[in-house]
Amino acid sequence: MPVRPHGRAFDALRPTMIDTGTAPFAEGSCTITMGMTRVLCTASVEEGVPPWREGVGGWVTGEYAMLPRATNTRTRRERRGAGGRTQEIQRLIGRSLRAAVDLEALGEHTVTVDCDVLVADGGTRTASITGACVALESAFQTLVREGILPASPLTQWVSAVSVGIVDGEPRLDLEYVEDSAADVDFNVVSLEDGRFVEVQGTAEGAPFDRSELDALLALAGAGITELLHIQKSA
Amino acid sequence: MPVRPHGRAFDALRPTMIDTGTAPFAEGSCTITMGMTRVLCTASVEEGVPPWREGVGGWVTGEYAMLPRATNTRTRRERRGAGGRTQEIQRLIGRSLRAAVDLEALGEHTVTVDCDVLVADGGTRTASITGACVALESAFQTLVREGILPASPLTQWVSAVSVGIVDGEPRLDLEYVEDSAADVDFNVVSLEDGRFVEVQGTAEGAPFDRSELDALLALAGAGITELLHIQKSA
Amino acid sequence: MPVRPHGRAFDALRPTMIDTGTAPFAEGSCTITMGMTRVLCTASVEEGVPPWREGVGGWVTGEYAMLPRATNTRTRRERRGAGGRTQEIQRLIGRSLRAAVDLEALGEHTVTVDCDVLVADGGTRTASITGACVALESAFQTLVREGILPASPLTQWVSAVSVGIVDGEPRLDLEYVEDSAADVDFNVVSLEDGRFVEVQGTAEGAPFDRSELDALLALAGAGITELLHIQKSA
Amino acid sequence: MPVRPHGRAFDALRPTMIDTGTAPFAEGSCTITMGMTRVLCTASVEEGVPPWREGVGGWVTGEYAMLPRATNTRTRRERRGAGGRTQEIQRLIGRSLRAAVDLEALGEHTVTVDCDVLVADGGTRTASITGACVALESAFQTLVREGILPASPLTQWVSAVSVGIVDGEPRLDLEYVEDSAADVDFNVVSLEDGRFVEVQGTAEGAPFDRSELDALLALAGAGITELLHIQKSA
Amino acid sequence: MPVRPHGRAFDALRPTMIDTGTAPFAEGSCTITMGMTRVLCTASVEEGVPPWREGVGGWVTGEYAMLPRATNTRTRRERRGAGGRTQEIQRLIGRSLRAAVDLEALGEHTVTVDCDVLVADGGTRTASITGACVALESAFQTLVREGILPASPLTQWVSAVSVGIVDGEPRLDLEYVEDSAADVDFNVVSLEDGRFVEVQGTAEGAPFDRSELDALLALAGAGITELLHIQKSA
Amino acid sequence: MPVRPHGRAFDALRPTMIDTGTAPFAEGSCTITMGMTRVLCTASVEEGVPPWREGVGGWVTGEYAMLPRATNTRTRRERRGAGGRTQEIQRLIGRSLRAAVDLEALGEHTVTVDCDVLVADGGTRTASITGACVALESAFQTLVREGILPASPLTQWVSAVSVGIVDGEPRLDLEYVEDSAADVDFNVVSLEDGRFVEVQGTAEGAPFDRSELDALLALAGAGITELLHIQKSA
Repeated sequence: MPVRPHGRAFDALRPTMIDTGTAPFAEGSCTITMGMTRVLCTASVEEGVPPWREGVGGWVTGEYAMLPRATNTRTRRERRGAGGRTQEIQRLIGRSLRAAVDLEALGEHTVTVDCDVLVADGGTRTASITGACVALESAFQTLVREGILPASPLTQWVSAVSVGIVDGEPRLDLEYVEDSAADVDFNVVSLEDGRFVEVQGTAEGAPFDRSELDALLALAGAGITELLHIQKSA
Repeated sequence: MPVRPHGRAFDALRPTMIDTGTAPFAEGSCTITMGMTRVLCTASVEEGVPPWREGVGGWVTGEYAMLPRATNTRTRRERRGAGGRTQEIQRLIGRSLRAAVDLEALGEHTVTVDCDVLVADGGTRTASITGACVALESAFQTLVREGILPASPLTQWVSAVSVGIVDGEPRLDLEYVEDSAADVDFNVVSLEDGRFVEVQGTAEGAPFDRSELDALLALAGAGITELLHIQKSA
Repeated sequence: MPVRPHGRAFDALRPTMIDTGTAPFAEGSCTITMGMTRVLCTASVEEGVPPWREGVGGWVTGEYAMLPRATNTRTRRERRGAGGRTQEIQRLIGRSLRAAVDLEALGEHTVTVDCDVLVADGGTRTASITGACVALESAFQTLVREGILPASPLTQWVSAVSVGIVDGEPRLDLEYVEDSAADVDFNVVSLEDGRFVEVQGTAEGAPFDRSELDALLALAGAGITELLHIQKSA
Repeated sequence: MPVRPHGRAFDALRPTMIDTGTAPFAEGSCTITMGMTRVLCTASVEEGVPPWREGVGGWVTGEYAMLPRATNTRTRRERRGAGGRTQEIQRLIGRSLRAAVDLEALGEHTVTVDCDVLVADGGTRTASITGACVALESAFQTLVREGILPASPLTQWVSAVSVGIVDGEPRLDLEYVEDSAADVDFNVVSLEDGRFVEVQGTAEGAPFDRSELDALLALAGAGITELLHIQKSA
Repeated sequence: MPVRPHGRAFDALRPTMIDTGTAPFAEGSCTITMGMTRVLCTASVEEGVPPWREGVGGWVTGEYAMLPRATNTRTRRERRGAGGRTQEIQRLIGRSLRAAVDLEALGEHTVTVDCDVLVADGGTRTASITGACVALESAFQTLVREGILPASPLTQWVSAVSVGIVDGEPRLDLEYVEDSAADVDFNVVSLEDGRFVEVQGTAEGAPFDRSELDALLALAGAGITELLHIQKSA
Repeated sequence: MPVRPHGRAFDALRPTMIDTGTAPFAEGSCTITMGMTRVLCTASVEEGVPPWREGVGGWVTGEYAMLPRATNTRTRRERRGAGGRTQEIQRLIGRSLRAAVDLEALGEHTVTVDCDVLVADGGTRTASITGACVALESAFQTLVREGILPASPLTQWVSAVSVGIVDGEPRLDLEYVEDSAADVDFNVVSLEDGRFVEVQGTAEGAPFDRSELDALLALAGAGITELLHIQKSA
């Protein structure tokens, strides 16, 4: 059986760390590090909501970007509009966070969570979600401390991880060299109670059958349990 | 148990039809109708490939748009750049089609499959994929007939369907009123041999557990079998 | 004397058909077919008017687009702004429709008529105007039926046709192969009482003298009479 | 019968002047003044032609813009793309100039004629064409003087004027207050031999019948004769 | 010591002229000519201020553009957004003008001064500032004459000039051939009392030391004194 | 005399630190921290140069951006084009770096130095230049180590600092609360030998006279000497 980089076990996360307060001007912030991947997540609270949310409750949305040299070769800044991949990820972050929040209890506030990738070595979208939830809860704590909200409207923590099939083997938390060689790439987003918010699986190479799908979901479940633990400690 | 619109069974597709040749100037084309949803798919073949495919083989890509009044209220044309939803769907169409094609056998040709939604009543992205595959194979037949390719590079048919949980009940092929009330929305793309190309499940309302996921995948599988049959007859 | 495609007489329209109701969600719609040219026209009614029309009356405007593969080779979507030709045609459609409507009687409603060319074989801008008027009147009938307007604010039907000089011969309703070989290309828009709303003549090749202009206007007049008859039957 | 501003006769041009050489760095240039309207026209010659003209001959194209305060109230600069009116005028200028030039004799050069409106008091598009032809011929003379071309490829002068119906009366060369009150607005572009290059008539208010069209074309013909004389003297 | 073009002394301005009223529809306007450089400056007054100025006082801003053939070879119009150089100059014009105006006394008016370069032979940004101040004061006089303001809110005249080091020699008011050969390029903006509003010095070639900086500022001071005299006479 | 935040002396820099290697995939990188301001600088080397540099030597350019929540309130991402301030800063960074490099010795390489502001508390443009020079030299060392260049083409270190007049007092290295209250704001860029590359002084409030300018340049000189020391130690 092929060996993973750094001798990692097929079901092991990379070393993961979440530092909070790394953007001192934001209501909530953290930097999440998974192996070499590193994402700065900041939660910004504004009063008021978009027109279609008026009278209904608050709103939570996400933005995502990579610094030009987060990657191995330089990527151009998206100054002529966000590309398809960026928009897809932003929509995913927003949906994932909203699944974890009681928007009515948030009141007429809009929270924008910016996920800026400082170093990209695979799994940036799932790390963004995991970090974004910490930044978001941290902003909620600020609102509670300032007496603006009676309690945090976070109903459950939400966490995400990537899994995939590389060289015929299901693996947890792919890093870049694995990701680019994977036949199948899954992103799984779950809540604390184990239920799914998103399951996105793509056959980049060979299609996958039902038993492979089952193996991947099991692997993701275990990874997410571990991540939820790290989030709560942060 | 709640009743679906038009008394449809929970595991029944809407009446589905695929007419070919509806864009007379295109190398391949069809109009797919599923209930009221109707999408015009055209496959355009150009010589040459994008720079990063040179010397590797052909390329297949997809574009997607809705006519402004395909929907219940008028939607603005995307004349300042394609939005996030559009780009996400376009990427999905392209990936799905490429999974069905032997790109090397295609030679240095680029095929663009345009999916223009004439009427939108739910399931436009999955209907686009199903129709796009027919338009694509039809263009391949043109290339064979003109002696440009020795045989069609389509390796298997690809088909897609939406499934979801509405009022607690798993349902096949959601129409718009169901889609907008669904707690969970899945898009499944499969090949003839039953293997998955894409599985995208989103909790719009309540998150979903493992048994619900299983039920939805089974429902999708049955629908796709039926669609593959309609594609081949077209 | 040279022979036209399909043995058509110099003063004959192509086979023309207008089907109404082809966009089921729109207040008014039709598909107009002239030979191979086919345009889907939908009229969308919104409450309110642009700022500069407030207190003055309603507003009617047009949009125009071609599907990418309406033409013989694929055309890129106008996702970075509508091009000059598109904008010119849109302005022409809007002006033509407004000449046929009592805007004061329309009240503070804005009607947008979208003309989407499904197949382009010459004469798409004039077919768009002719079809747009049918979609517009159909939307007005909807407003009357719903008790929103006491009577249709259409004062006269408006219709349009192209004429041109090909191989030295004036011809009615040019199709694409004729249009691209024409020395002179005229678009004429008229009301039922025979008066002109627009006359646009361009020398693509040799300039034209006064007697040629007279012959072309006569030819256009006869064609428009026939089109008005088809519109009213629709 | 109503009186025109400054007691002008219905068939009189405004005082018209063409000064050449007003853009010292351009191969050809002039400033055309018609009443208060003033347009700076510059012709820039570049070697080479657009791809679709290679091996066929030269190319002549036009651009048009108004300075922000050419008009009575300030207009925003078109920094997010040229608007519909601008593009329509640019296309008209280009077509008009090309009708006056033997493009084959021009060889593989591209001439861009920029028409920048310094003061706008009606008739800016027609003044632009008249001035542009002078700037163009002036650039051709430069090419002849420099031995790049054996003779000017201008085959005939081209000139343009606006006519319209105001208060029921046909009038030549409308200024702004007349233009905004006109029922019918015609732009006519002609060559020296009297043949038309473009005839564009629009009913802004009441539609026009055949006899009105005839009267307007006669009026335009007389105006253009006078303008051709001024062009040649410049 | 090298000789300047036209035998100009190192501390001499080019022949400079300011004609006012050259944009008849604007509240204030002038054309400033310095050697071959020529800029049309128009001041447009609008009621109201941007949101962040409400309740604080008026606002003055500048825009800058070059006609495509102001320069030796044609420059493309900035129709996809103003470039970096343009925006930098616009910001400089705005800041310089605001330093000369009592914004509170201006009341809730916004004045936009457009500087359109008709001919560019070096020093266009400084000529724009000098001309813009004349157009602005001319607009203020219009407001006073119309009884809208009791007195002009211009507190001091503001003027600008470029200086530079060419062939080791400090020179006043560089023209294009000097500017493109300069090692150091300074733009200095001053008020009547000799105080600076802006000092921008850039080493294009060799860096500059303190004594060179001193020499350049002295040269600029003398030039600005002369320009202030010309402004007041205009 | 007023007291500065944290009791800082008028001629003291904020605590300043430069950590190198903070972007592991870049040829050169550092994070510069001055007080709370923190900028990540990465230098990316690409083979080849822009067309106008071919055959002349290498090229060095800079880009600048702020993360949305670097500031006290969230700033929108510049996804519709870089704004005026951003472009102005980018041009300044590029010019400053090029003054420190022997471009001929660099050979046909393009180095892009990205300065991404993680936390913004005043002085971000000058910190960017100081950090960018460290990232650049670090990239040059990489090229030397890989045998691509025989020696670093950095001729002298370049460093930058802001100075200003606050409450009538000249101060070194303004932080945000000082910057926004400053009457005069200077950015000074110098080489090791004390010569200036850029001097940009702006009167935000009261204009400044010659003696104030002298005091500010002296203050900047002392600050830059200290920064050059920190750069070399990094």
